Amino acid sequence: MDHAPDTSSPQSLHRVVVIGGGFGGVRVVQGLRNANVQVTLIDRRNFHLFQPLTYQIATGALSPGQVAYPLRALFKSAPNVRVLLAEVSGFDLAGRDVLLADVPEIGAPTSVPYDTLVVAAGSSYSYFGHDDWADIAPEVKSLESALTVRSRILSAFEQAELTVEESIRQEEMTFVIVGGGPTGVEVAGQIAELARDTLRRNFRNIDSRDARVLLIDAGDRLLSTFPPSLSAKAARSLERLGVEVMVNHMVVGVEPRAVTVAANGAEHQRIPTATTIWAAGVKASGLADELGRAAGAEVDRDGRVTVERDLTLPGHPEVMVLGDMVRVRDDRGGVVSLPGVAPVAIQQGQYAARLIRDRLENRSTPAFRYRDKGNLATIGRARAVADIRGLRLSGFLAWWVWLGVHLWYLIGFQNRLLVIIQWSISFFTHGRGARLVTEPPPKADEAIKTPGRAARAGAAASASRGRG
Amino acid sequence: MDHAPDTSSPQSLHRVVVIGGGFGGVRVVQGLRNANVQVTLIDRRNFHLFQPLTYQIATGALSPGQVAYPLRALFKSAPNVRVLLAEVSGFDLAGRDVLLADVPEIGAPTSVPYDTLVVAAGSSYSYFGHDDWADIAPEVKSLESALTVRSRILSAFEQAELTVEESIRQEEMTFVIVGGGPTGVEVAGQIAELARDTLRRNFRNIDSRDARVLLIDAGDRLLSTFPPSLSAKAARSLERLGVEVMVNHMVVGVEPRAVTVAANGAEHQRIPTATTIWAAGVKASGLADELGRAAGAEVDRDGRVTVERDLTLPGHPEVMVLGDMVRVRDDRGGVVSLPGVAPVAIQQGQYAARLIRDRLENRSTPAFRYRDKGNLATIGRARAVADIRGLRLSGFLAWWVWLGVHLWYLIGFQNRLLVIIQWSISFFTHGRGARLVTEPPPKADEAIKTPGRAARAGAAASASRGRG
Repeated sequence: MDHAPDTSSPQSLHRVVVIGGGFGGVRVVQGLRNANVQVTLIDRRNFHLFQPLTYQIATGALSPGQVAYPLRALFKSAPNVRVLLAEVSGFDLAGRDVLLADVPEIGAPTSVPYDTLVVAAGSSYSYFGHDDWADIAPEVKSLESALTVRSRILSAFEQAELTVEESIRQEEMTFVIVGGGPTGVEVAGQIAELARDTLRRNFRNIDSRDARVLLIDAGDRLLSTFPPSLSAKAARSLERLGVEVMVNHMVVGVEPRAVTVAANGAEHQRIPTATTIWAAGVKASGLADELGRAAGAEVDRDGRVTVERDLTLPGHPEVMVLGDMVRVRDDRGGVVSLPGVAPVAIQQGQYAARLIRDRLENRSTPAFRYRDKGNLATIGRARAVADIRGLRLSGFLAWWVWLGVHLWYLIGFQNRLLVIIQWSISFFTHGRGARLVTEPPPKADEAIKTPGRAARAGAAASASRGRG
Repeated sequence: MDHAPDTSSPQSLHRVVVIGGGFGGVRVVQGLRNANVQVTLIDRRNFHLFQPLTYQIATGALSPGQVAYPLRALFKSAPNVRVLLAEVSGFDLAGRDVLLADVPEIGAPTSVPYDTLVVAAGSSYSYFGHDDWADIAPEVKSLESALTVRSRILSAFEQAELTVEESIRQEEMTFVIVGGGPTGVEVAGQIAELARDTLRRNFRNIDSRDARVLLIDAGDRLLSTFPPSLSAKAARSLERLGVEVMVNHMVVGVEPRAVTVAANGAEHQRIPTATTIWAAGVKASGLADELGRAAGAEVDRDGRVTVERDLTLPGHPEVMVLGDMVRVRDDRGGVVSLPGVAPVAIQQGQYAARLIRDRLENRSTPAFRYRDKGNLATIGRARAVADIRGLRLSGFLAWWVWLGVHLWYLIGFQNRLLVIIQWSISFFTHGRGARLVTEPPPKADEAIKTPGRAARAGAAASASRGRG
């Protein structure tokens, strides 16, 4: 097979291959910049996506360029790091090869050899086994999907304004968000604000404030990973914004212009809506399952593979897996599943880099230990909830914490600057930076131009999820 | 037929319908904000696109949100103005109705009645009768097409880095721009800089500076609308950037991975390239032809209809047509075709608004007269040529003029601010703001969600062209 050509450094060097340019993968590579290893970062996308803010693209608050950063620019000045834009199709653990999707038109290599492999391919939403719902109810974690959602939200208002049929107007003015986690809460809050503030007085036949925003969750409260008191505060804030919070409701059907929900006891309820947004469930990258089967390791029903306390694949100390595609063994032989948030991926990425360096210098490394930095969720303008090691904040103060943390972790000075400015303008003008309904660009010849298009499965496979 | 519902103002008011939210259409509506008329602006897109800078999206220098501005936000505080996001399918001049593409799924109206009609639907590129070339060689005037070009340019470098076959690497590292007008010149200059500056040291298997950038034009010099001395200066600047300028070359064939050119005398030359960008020829919106046939007016081979000296359609004083979809009769009965640049559309839009106001007050209006503000083109970083009423500038000074003029005409404080910041950062860091390879979003249900998708023909139909 064709090995990836490499002129960057002598073959004698220890070869580390990292899969996934999300929070985890990027931290691994950053931790190895100056180490005496040759690093290959493989991603199907050419950018690192700051997923905790990707949903703001869907509401027109931010532009793609503000939450994404080119991976090459990130490692430009690290000569021992190379970036490959390619699609991983599998592994040859015995031969220590990463297998790449074959793209003969462009003569792409079909494998990349490694001495140490780090897999941080993240996860995507699960549609409760109804993959056919994905097109009807797009998610807001991948950049393209967020852009699709943006077009749909704005088009819905346009069509409500345009239509001559009242029933259609009702459907267009109803927005259903499935999933009451931080992302669902934030999207619901932002759509409510879009309708109440940003779009106000923009229309002549409708009043955008009449829009219905429904936030549906099967659990008995929103933000289940937060303390109940903060869940309640979040629900109240959303309701003040006009969001209808429907907990204890299970989505059992998704059609192009309706969603069907079931509450225990009550009979099914059909909600006509032109726009359904998905923010529920989680499915680890298919690569986790691949690795699990290849190594005979445990894989849970969310597709996460169980790794050792040092994040290595059982029986394969040369393979590490991290982020929200794994569950980690604990010291009492049990299994911990950490929340699928950025800090976990970041800490595990830093740990992986440290372990690799320690091994090269024959130092031993203690088991991975997660330091919980707390939980944050914003609810529209100047409102948020924060649970920082027991310290519970809500409202304006929590919002400032949220702002600070997100700007701090955002990669790239330019992105930080532009996001601050965009947010400031939006805050004072109640405006939105990027209210554009864009059509998908013509696809001609795209398959050749972008290897990533070869396989589409797992929209988020290129990054660990920003949060659960 | 269903008339567009309208609750904004009494039916008794004089109804002005404006088609196209480009430079011309927007100026018409702005000129009528406070007039005693009811204005309906129809566009298939929900934003005004600043076309003179759209090509910078293609090179990753700017983001869509920075060059596009929501039409509704623009006229939010003008109660006598409503915006309809719809696709115009034709006209009933006798019945004074604008016919809309039928979108039964959303119960869209099928017509909009008018007392005065202003058509400013702009133009798009012509592929010399080879519409099949459009997918292979996308243009950079429409937002989606510019995004496609961006993905292709960046993917080409990625694939050159990735491929194991030298011949393919050569194709990927060759960029062909067809058309030596301002847009072609600016795109060529920016791609050369992308390769020399921005992407430098980003790759390990290739040196981005080895990229070939070919600028092809059938004429005997670049920037044919400029004085020859400036054309020569532009050519020299481009060559200094490493661009191969091929004037007197006619493109006779476009294939997915090659372009064939013919020079008079010489035999055909086949240039292998993975990326061809189109910036040549011009074709007026099909609506010009519609109007021409309906009114028995002259239509030239570029599809432009001839209008009277007051921009009205012959025999239809209640219909005005403007921008680069018209040629204007002059006082000696001849016909003038003005350059397809923003200033022409802007001045004609202002004139149309004035004419409409004058008529309501029974004032007469002198014939339209174009005040030439001059000609500008930038050639990459800190270089430009300017021809301002005989005053010929080039280099850094011309570049400052170019900057100032473009920022001045850019709509929206936020856009101006963000563009200034983005440009400043790029200038000092040699970076690019938006180097993202994005896949087209999933199309599911899009046809229902965006009326504009109903018909695709004439990408630029929603705006008058920024320049020739």
